[in-house]
Amino acid sequence: MESHREANSMASSSLTPPEVPMELHAINRGKLVKSLLQHLTESTHPLHGFVLLQGGEEQTRHDTDHAELFRQESYFAYLFGVREPGFYGAIDIATGKSILFAPRLPAEYAVWLGEIKPLSYFKERYMVSKVCYTDEIAGVLHDEYKEQGKPLLFLLHGLNTDSNNFSKPAEFEGIEKFKTDLNTLHPILAECRVFKSDLELALIQYANDISSEAHVEVMRKTTVGMKEYQLESMFLHHTYMYGGCRHCSYTCICATGGNSAVLHYGHAAAPNDRTFEDGDMALLDMGAEYHFYGSDITCSFPVNGKFTSDQRLIYNVWSCDWLESRGKRIKSETECPVYNYYILQAVLQAHNTVISAMKPGVNWIDMHKLAEKIILDSLKKGCIVVGDVDDMMVKRLGAVFMPHGLGHFLGIDTHDTGGYLEGLERPKEPGLKSLRTVRDLQEGMVITVEPGCYFIDALLAPAMENSETSKFFNHEIIGRFKSFGGVRIESDVVPAAGNLHNQSSSCYFQWLQEHDERPRETWEIEAVMAGSPWPLDKSSIHSENGREGK
Amino acid sequence: MESHREANSMASSSLTPPEVPMELHAINRGKLVKSLLQHLTESTHPLHGFVLLQGGEEQTRHDTDHAELFRQESYFAYLFGVREPGFYGAIDIATGKSILFAPRLPAEYAVWLGEIKPLSYFKERYMVSKVCYTDEIAGVLHDEYKEQGKPLLFLLHGLNTDSNNFSKPAEFEGIEKFKTDLNTLHPILAECRVFKSDLELALIQYANDISSEAHVEVMRKTTVGMKEYQLESMFLHHTYMYGGCRHCSYTCICATGGNSAVLHYGHAAAPNDRTFEDGDMALLDMGAEYHFYGSDITCSFPVNGKFTSDQRLIYNVWSCDWLESRGKRIKSETECPVYNYYILQAVLQAHNTVISAMKPGVNWIDMHKLAEKIILDSLKKGCIVVGDVDDMMVKRLGAVFMPHGLGHFLGIDTHDTGGYLEGLERPKEPGLKSLRTVRDLQEGMVITVEPGCYFIDALLAPAMENSETSKFFNHEIIGRFKSFGGVRIESDVVPAAGNLHNQSSSCYFQWLQEHDERPRETWEIEAVMAGSPWPLDKSSIHSENGREGK
Repeated sequence: MESHREANSMASSSLTPPEVPMELHAINRGKLVKSLLQHLTESTHPLHGFVLLQGGEEQTRHDTDHAELFRQESYFAYLFGVREPGFYGAIDIATGKSILFAPRLPAEYAVWLGEIKPLSYFKERYMVSKVCYTDEIAGVLHDEYKEQGKPLLFLLHGLNTDSNNFSKPAEFEGIEKFKTDLNTLHPILAECRVFKSDLELALIQYANDISSEAHVEVMRKTTVGMKEYQLESMFLHHTYMYGGCRHCSYTCICATGGNSAVLHYGHAAAPNDRTFEDGDMALLDMGAEYHFYGSDITCSFPVNGKFTSDQRLIYNVWSCDWLESRGKRIKSETECPVYNYYILQAVLQAHNTVISAMKPGVNWIDMHKLAEKIILDSLKKGCIVVGDVDDMMVKRLGAVFMPHGLGHFLGIDTHDTGGYLEGLERPKEPGLKSLRTVRDLQEGMVITVEPGCYFIDALLAPAMENSETSKFFNHEIIGRFKSFGGVRIESDVVPAAGNLHNQSSSCYFQWLQEHDERPRETWEIEAVMAGSPWPLDKSSIHSENGREGK
Repeated sequence: MESHREANSMASSSLTPPEVPMELHAINRGKLVKSLLQHLTESTHPLHGFVLLQGGEEQTRHDTDHAELFRQESYFAYLFGVREPGFYGAIDIATGKSILFAPRLPAEYAVWLGEIKPLSYFKERYMVSKVCYTDEIAGVLHDEYKEQGKPLLFLLHGLNTDSNNFSKPAEFEGIEKFKTDLNTLHPILAECRVFKSDLELALIQYANDISSEAHVEVMRKTTVGMKEYQLESMFLHHTYMYGGCRHCSYTCICATGGNSAVLHYGHAAAPNDRTFEDGDMALLDMGAEYHFYGSDITCSFPVNGKFTSDQRLIYNVWSCDWLESRGKRIKSETECPVYNYYILQAVLQAHNTVISAMKPGVNWIDMHKLAEKIILDSLKKGCIVVGDVDDMMVKRLGAVFMPHGLGHFLGIDTHDTGGYLEGLERPKEPGLKSLRTVRDLQEGMVITVEPGCYFIDALLAPAMENSETSKFFNHEIIGRFKSFGGVRIESDVVPAAGNLHNQSSSCYFQWLQEHDERPRETWEIEAVMAGSPWPLDKSSIHSENGREGK
């Protein structure tokens, strides 16, 4: 009985939540100060003042006392790593000195919410130079200031190009005793966040590892007749129970059947509540967050765990010619699942080809177009579209099948900062306008690669009616995709320079991708869903399953 | 292989998420209209106008596009049951006609967020008389109004006595074309929510059932060396995976050891992250929510699953006299766990005695004091406090050991509305001032019964120094409780009239409590944690475990 009680609670994972080094945030602060000083030097501004950020506050739901689980504001998390609400943080740019301001908690906090920790606790935990109370900000910063006149505060104010919202500059009592600068900090800090340090990469790697493991676990336990939310529940449980991840990067998208054509499915108005059926594909876009740093992973697979041999055959040799020669077309709605295999392979090819092509200096629009082209090529080979693929590219046909961008920066936010440097314009064309960045890749960036191919009525219908694009569609076949949904395959990638003397394609994407493997190939998916351990012993599986068809 | 794929996904629960009858909300609306008309009649006001509520909006996190999972505002949920954000709802009080106003979604919604549902979908789903768009509110309400002059809108504005926040009255374009009344609606609607219909009770019952099952599951899987958050993860998973509960009523409190003295442990600054040890007690306060209706349940148990025979012995015969006669006291910190059993029994006795005493007409302050007295009696019997218990009651000593209220209304909010009717004053005395209601019990109320006994330094230290209360404490023994934490036992109860001709004590608490059983008695906890199925076959367990000691 005692042994039952002491069973290994971590038995279902090969991972253990790592210690978080708070040096990570000290390094982030150092990086900011360096960038800021450089900017001020170049623009011949004085090199003193304070960066001042206001952390997030706990929110209650409407008029009630229901407290939402607090998650720190991302810029504040980046610089200070503070998990508690109600803080401010300052950095003296002349000295690099960092000061946290903690809320002065009322005595009854100790009864209801826990020990009132001394300031020294926060100083030690968060590795800052000094900790004071939030009601001391004005006084402390004035005391710290060694120059004449009103101290200058660099406050955070700027546009988030994903939400079109503005970050809110710090407010506190006594702010009128300071000069404030609302323009300088935001672009510099946003840019700092684009390039991840090794300590940051390690956390993102961990979030990826535990999420990948959870994806495999979900895949393995998926059975026909379940509800979509059960897949979400399994993912959340695995990443929290074994990974210590209390938050996810975003609400889980657990789409099956036609729902997989809804790019951001899973929210309250489309809450992962469908019961899925034999023959459905699942599209699971789920990523855990660990100490603020996130992951963002999508797997697509058939819920019954099997590609049929027919599907395999069609994948291997399917082409218009072949279909003609066999004197047949896919005949009915019920044969629709045969497309799953085909579309999955098209998207997987785009995913793999893009990753192989990624390296510093490559422009992200080009990668997006590369993915589009591969998908259109496949669709053409599959008689779904007809005509010249270059013409299709000119007419932006790719955006009908993949309306979202190829990928986005990933970090403390799922759609991380810095996508559009000042001066960079967002494209206006369909598909490209959805790109969350159009930058050239550089070392240290973390970016998602998430090509997809969807059959979205709201996009297909007008495109098929449009006189300029109608000709590209095989209207007969497209009609059969009405409830198909879509396929997306997504990994998180770090473009790295690698060894220039040994440029195998794989050396351009770093260990994040390498360690980050999920079952991607059809035979891998089938094996895992049939109960094989993961990773597979690929050499044996490989030959058995006739990978040569690929 | 196919059979593996089709395994029963619900195998680990005896429950299935029930269909939600939308009549529930129609009944709620009917009840409101009836109350409102009665009020207007009594105060000789005209019997026309519209109740108008604004539903909740989806929130993004700070400046980012990270969307928090939306949960409907509670009053709106009560009247309309709408799960989608961005709605308004109106009720014509003259006719009872109900009108929902849905947001007019942009075309790209279909690509990113899902099908744009026709208004008829919402009309059918939510069983309302009519559905229009939110940009039509002013026009539609004017058209519907059959009287002369500006139509009157009853808007929701009033104090939430748990949060001290005010609900936000609806705002919309064209509101200046209406007369508005900010005073009438809130107290009437808040009061409607106090009394649950059978359909509401059924949902609360279900939320209780799945949560109880999850508590048992967690208890069974708890082993020494786990992290507190793993218990949270197991609870969340069970209630979502098998119960379809995507939300909890509140953030899980998974407190072990000394943390169990922190009443609202588990938030971001105290995030269930302790590794627990042999000898610790766990205090788990966790409740799932199903279609807005919640549960609120606390179980306390030893993490190693065993009360030792020594503990049992001490529980049975422990008294000052007995200890004296044996010439010993509990000697050291390491003997502290023996108190677990004792404190648990004291709290359980308070819990059971209160529930037995609950019936319509009983005042909640009296129930609170009854619990306090039982706990103080037990503490006295255990030599923890000394002196006259009535004197202790006068000095409010109970509030040192149980600073929170005995319980609160439960419904769409965990701390549900209506705790303080207009005219009811919140008490000022320690402990009593924390009561979220001081009303007389009535049929149809759902209220939690959650006595606790905690050793909270921040309360004990001043009380032990205070010249008026110092004498009540056995300073030597109390000193040993420094890291003890606390015990709470909580159930959700519906006081019911029962059959007045057959007033056994148990007929005053209804089926909610009866079906709502968790392992409460020590032998039940031990049996379940040792692997027995739940519910136990009590007759056999009973005699084996010497219940007569109780």
